[in-house]
Amino acid sequence: MSMVNHETTAVGTVDLRTVRDYRERARELLEPHLFDNMFGTDDDAIGRTDNSNRAAFESLAFRPRILRDVSSRSLATTVLGQRLEVPIMLGPIGDARRVHPDGELATIRAANAAGISMVLSMVSSVSATEIIEAASGPVWTQLYVLKDRAATGRLVEHLAEVGSAALVVTVDNPGIISKDVNVGRPPQDWGTLKELGILETLAVRRSMIENIDPAVTWKDIDWLRSLTQLPIVLKGIRTPEDATLCREHGVDGLVLSNHGGHTLGDQTGTVARLPEIVEAAGETEVYLDGGIREGADVLAALALGARAVLLGRAQYWGLTVAGEAGLTHVLEILRRELDKTMMFCGVTDLQQVDHRLLTSVVGDRFIE
Amino acid sequence: MSMVNHETTAVGTVDLRTVRDYRERARELLEPHLFDNMFGTDDDAIGRTDNSNRAAFESLAFRPRILRDVSSRSLATTVLGQRLEVPIMLGPIGDARRVHPDGELATIRAANAAGISMVLSMVSSVSATEIIEAASGPVWTQLYVLKDRAATGRLVEHLAEVGSAALVVTVDNPGIISKDVNVGRPPQDWGTLKELGILETLAVRRSMIENIDPAVTWKDIDWLRSLTQLPIVLKGIRTPEDATLCREHGVDGLVLSNHGGHTLGDQTGTVARLPEIVEAAGETEVYLDGGIREGADVLAALALGARAVLLGRAQYWGLTVAGEAGLTHVLEILRRELDKTMMFCGVTDLQQVDHRLLTSVVGDRFIE
Amino acid sequence: MSMVNHETTAVGTVDLRTVRDYRERARELLEPHLFDNMFGTDDDAIGRTDNSNRAAFESLAFRPRILRDVSSRSLATTVLGQRLEVPIMLGPIGDARRVHPDGELATIRAANAAGISMVLSMVSSVSATEIIEAASGPVWTQLYVLKDRAATGRLVEHLAEVGSAALVVTVDNPGIISKDVNVGRPPQDWGTLKELGILETLAVRRSMIENIDPAVTWKDIDWLRSLTQLPIVLKGIRTPEDATLCREHGVDGLVLSNHGGHTLGDQTGTVARLPEIVEAAGETEVYLDGGIREGADVLAALALGARAVLLGRAQYWGLTVAGEAGLTHVLEILRRELDKTMMFCGVTDLQQVDHRLLTSVVGDRFIE
Amino acid sequence: MSMVNHETTAVGTVDLRTVRDYRERARELLEPHLFDNMFGTDDDAIGRTDNSNRAAFESLAFRPRILRDVSSRSLATTVLGQRLEVPIMLGPIGDARRVHPDGELATIRAANAAGISMVLSMVSSVSATEIIEAASGPVWTQLYVLKDRAATGRLVEHLAEVGSAALVVTVDNPGIISKDVNVGRPPQDWGTLKELGILETLAVRRSMIENIDPAVTWKDIDWLRSLTQLPIVLKGIRTPEDATLCREHGVDGLVLSNHGGHTLGDQTGTVARLPEIVEAAGETEVYLDGGIREGADVLAALALGARAVLLGRAQYWGLTVAGEAGLTHVLEILRRELDKTMMFCGVTDLQQVDHRLLTSVVGDRFIE
Repeated sequence: MSMVNHETTAVGTVDLRTVRDYRERARELLEPHLFDNMFGTDDDAIGRTDNSNRAAFESLAFRPRILRDVSSRSLATTVLGQRLEVPIMLGPIGDARRVHPDGELATIRAANAAGISMVLSMVSSVSATEIIEAASGPVWTQLYVLKDRAATGRLVEHLAEVGSAALVVTVDNPGIISKDVNVGRPPQDWGTLKELGILETLAVRRSMIENIDPAVTWKDIDWLRSLTQLPIVLKGIRTPEDATLCREHGVDGLVLSNHGGHTLGDQTGTVARLPEIVEAAGETEVYLDGGIREGADVLAALALGARAVLLGRAQYWGLTVAGEAGLTHVLEILRRELDKTMMFCGVTDLQQVDHRLLTSVVGDRFIE
Repeated sequence: MSMVNHETTAVGTVDLRTVRDYRERARELLEPHLFDNMFGTDDDAIGRTDNSNRAAFESLAFRPRILRDVSSRSLATTVLGQRLEVPIMLGPIGDARRVHPDGELATIRAANAAGISMVLSMVSSVSATEIIEAASGPVWTQLYVLKDRAATGRLVEHLAEVGSAALVVTVDNPGIISKDVNVGRPPQDWGTLKELGILETLAVRRSMIENIDPAVTWKDIDWLRSLTQLPIVLKGIRTPEDATLCREHGVDGLVLSNHGGHTLGDQTGTVARLPEIVEAAGETEVYLDGGIREGADVLAALALGARAVLLGRAQYWGLTVAGEAGLTHVLEILRRELDKTMMFCGVTDLQQVDHRLLTSVVGDRFIE
Repeated sequence: MSMVNHETTAVGTVDLRTVRDYRERARELLEPHLFDNMFGTDDDAIGRTDNSNRAAFESLAFRPRILRDVSSRSLATTVLGQRLEVPIMLGPIGDARRVHPDGELATIRAANAAGISMVLSMVSSVSATEIIEAASGPVWTQLYVLKDRAATGRLVEHLAEVGSAALVVTVDNPGIISKDVNVGRPPQDWGTLKELGILETLAVRRSMIENIDPAVTWKDIDWLRSLTQLPIVLKGIRTPEDATLCREHGVDGLVLSNHGGHTLGDQTGTVARLPEIVEAAGETEVYLDGGIREGADVLAALALGARAVLLGRAQYWGLTVAGEAGLTHVLEILRRELDKTMMFCGVTDLQQVDHRLLTSVVGDRFIE
Repeated sequence: MSMVNHETTAVGTVDLRTVRDYRERARELLEPHLFDNMFGTDDDAIGRTDNSNRAAFESLAFRPRILRDVSSRSLATTVLGQRLEVPIMLGPIGDARRVHPDGELATIRAANAAGISMVLSMVSSVSATEIIEAASGPVWTQLYVLKDRAATGRLVEHLAEVGSAALVVTVDNPGIISKDVNVGRPPQDWGTLKELGILETLAVRRSMIENIDPAVTWKDIDWLRSLTQLPIVLKGIRTPEDATLCREHGVDGLVLSNHGGHTLGDQTGTVARLPEIVEAAGETEVYLDGGIREGADVLAALALGARAVLLGRAQYWGLTVAGEAGLTHVLEILRRELDKTMMFCGVTDLQQVDHRLLTSVVGDRFIE
């Protein structure tokens, strides 16, 4: 997206004015092998997918409207009926302690400060019970369907009991991703699973990845639905065909995601696929992750029909640089940029925006 | 645009043959932080918007016609019925004293020499009275609608009294731009506003930006129209929808502009949007700014329906390098290049040109 | 294609995880002039054609489907009714001893290990008799139609006698390619031709190239068909018109190939031409070579209608680095990547895939 | 165009195998300011136009046909009924003595050796009489319509008398090009004009450019036609509208040219405009210059309807490096490359080729 020009902020320093600044600082702080493994390089699928996500945003330009009263703006929205002060959620990232000792506690405190929600990873450093206790608003919880269905069932019941506001089922990773994803991960330090005693019962204890079931199908989604009243969100949809199936199976929300390039790489960029996904999803809410770097990206995603975006990399970078304070600042940067972009676009309320706010640029031409 | 090949000119030196040469010299002369802040870098919205403006020009190629008698050419046009010897105006740039001690006096003298008009910024270093007195032709004056409507009204009356030939209302900057825009600016040194005593009455004195009203709407344009007989030009239109509204509100002219990237960045380039704006604007005259570097750009903009172009960066660079003489030379370079381009294209009169003079190049293909 | 992320493999070392790693190692091992001559540079037709083949793959992105049971996958296919454990064949490369002393014996052993077939070059270092004896499955044999038709006929009969499973006739090199192709080649060391005593009877003995007949036409294909019951495959088709002629002449298979850039360079990339070739070929099976670097490329080619792909460069690189073991590892890398890509795409059987698995990316836009 | 791979030639050395090699050698030999002035840089209209001409060729790919008898090929064609052994002419370049002491005598001898024609510049170092005497085939002669029409008429009569086979009238340079074009030019050393005594009668003697008439129109073409029976060719057409006018005015041939970027720069590349020009030109023969570097370019231009191509830069480079021998070698390189390209494309006669031989590549896609 076109950036708005960044101002120096009182919260940060001159050197940390943008999410990209946080990225560069995180690069300095993390061990290079870990950094490359989490965020990719130009030569691997992780980095190339991130580049594709960015390129898709950068092919969009705003069509700003003038002479509208933009003296007050509302950045709030709802997801599954729950209020977000800005249309941003913190995506499920595993083992936040890899980058900051406070782990997901830093995350939830930053979410509280920003008035938004987080999606707690199944393989979080801190247990769901602790996180939900620390939260001032709804917390969503992520899970994989495990080969051990009994354990999966117990997990779902537990998450409902401790107060999860939605189940986010990751469906784009049927059991195998790069082993190097475990770089920097303390083995078996996953709060919720330890709390439930699930770790001990799993067939394979060495790696969580190997407990994920590659045989999971839509029937398992129906089964999850039968287990709980919680809203169900599927994460990892990339085609309108699957968005249609989400709708038909009564799924409450879906995350258009290419898993940051960590599973199957992607050349298209999630935002490029957003319009067709939104059209197919019908009543199912659509969220997007992949490549969010600026407030303008958030507005563009909403204009194309997303209800909110999820942060992955930006979240890690904020946590890496300064834990809760860093992530709080990252969220504040995005909020300010979104606010300015809305103002310059003549938008005062996110419910007003649609595709007419945008145009596409291909080469040097633009296409309405 | 395709350049014509530049000849060494008697006015300048071998090293200053093109507007780009002036840019490089200005870069040497200005403090780097100021240069970057005014003209951007490849990493910010200012520089990227400038790049987009250039890319849009560079995707155009001429369709030159042969065997027409081009022994005499007329480069003159009219804007709002006022004659320009070349279809170029000097856009409203704030605080010209930041780059040259003569400030806007240098500007108007160069405009006089070239037989063109300038648009005096509301936040000029020199007052409208002085500038209009120094002018040998019409002067347009720019303003923002301020939160203080009484002050705004006084300003409009004053500008009419001292002989402004048109009001140029900037409508794409509802109150907040990068604070760094004040880099290098002497506080409260704005001639016209001082002369009128408006500075003292403003609610916020620290920064002019904060006095601009984000609540301004088309009703305020109607109000301005009711205040004065002066022609009204709106600066900062980017959509055909708003061009249509200009027409419907009886606006006399509009400037298709992306504010040089200083407000909301733009990926499309102004000239790419020109045809749809011209079509929607109807009787309202359309001017364009953004990315003008060569005489060929001027001809291309006119072929797509602009009546004239406004210079921003090129104006600053000329003033920076040598004040009045530098800007005079910049204008002479553009005039010669435009003249040559017309001759090579088989055009003798700017009223003849239309879109048939151009073709678009996308990748390695061209499209009529 | 989008890569899947590569894991460290027990077979290789950390530094040899991808086909590209083999390329870089081969570059270190081979004499630079030989490397450039075989694999090209960015400045010659060989390298530019390879770049085009890659660019065509990289313009494709997958449309992965979710929630399908992918717990078991079959990577097998058939070519001309013969089973391949993975849809990959080893293309006919001349004089394998240039890069490894075991020559084509290393090749066939690696093919055996992978459960696939090789296409033995007419100008192989090792004779067809020896290779077929060493093979655990079908071997295809490549030939040119020579000016000496009697010798050609004897060669065809011989290949049938010793057990070739198909004749692959190269049709895109009518007699002249760069002389430098002989760099590093021991003269007249071609096993099969020596065995048959054909070398002695040829009109020109200095260079095999000069014995190839530029006058060969479809009538010669009909003649070959009349000589033998062996299936006939034509290698070097680039147009649907010629694919149609293949079908009309009862050709059993065709290889869409741009000869790695060694004959006429190509800007399009073979995979970009695949859909139209498949459509025109009808019952004639279509194979593709050019630019295969990852398992994802194999899946993409099959989704667009190829029954299998042939390896050229990747084969040489594996042989260069470690002979049989190197090539075996290259094939294992591709098999694993293909398997993972299928799993992430929701594909369990190669017979299921069609064009709906893919989307094209042009610039930053994608096109279904 | 896709290159065929270049072989070492007996005529040249290993370092001079391609036209590009000649370019690099010429760069070493010529004074940098002269080289840049004649052939441009990436930053001026000359170099950028050359880049555009190349990009247009490089967006084309061949659709080679197989199994055609290509054992003998004819590269000959006719222009205005005159035979060329290869479809290449030597374009009118001024003052060849700037790059080699033999000047245009070297040119005509190389043309003789290759069995082709040259177009002698009006401002040649050697007179038309001498050149035509030295020629073994037809010579075409170029001229501008001068302000002094009487002198123009005398020149035309003289050229006819001494045996010019066609008049090539340059129509895209109405009197003003960069003064630097005179870099390295001996003043008033133009053979034909001296011979005729025209130099003395011209209004302006300092520069030939200033004697060219910017008021020339189609009436002057009709006047030239009335003066002489010689075929008339117009050089510098870029639009189908003007190609249509050529046909209507009975012009015998036209050169689609962007003057190598020396007049009005061009972003499209001449070959991109060729199809529409050929269609509009009807019976008028179309020739093309701009960007020819390889034999493949020649074949592509002919496939799109040109009867022949003209060499500008390649001619200068050959002359610069070794006068007659250098240019002879350049022509031999192009002939061999064209021959090979024809063979690989399944073409034996240039009369067979049409647009079906080509496909266009945009980004990573191709378009028939």
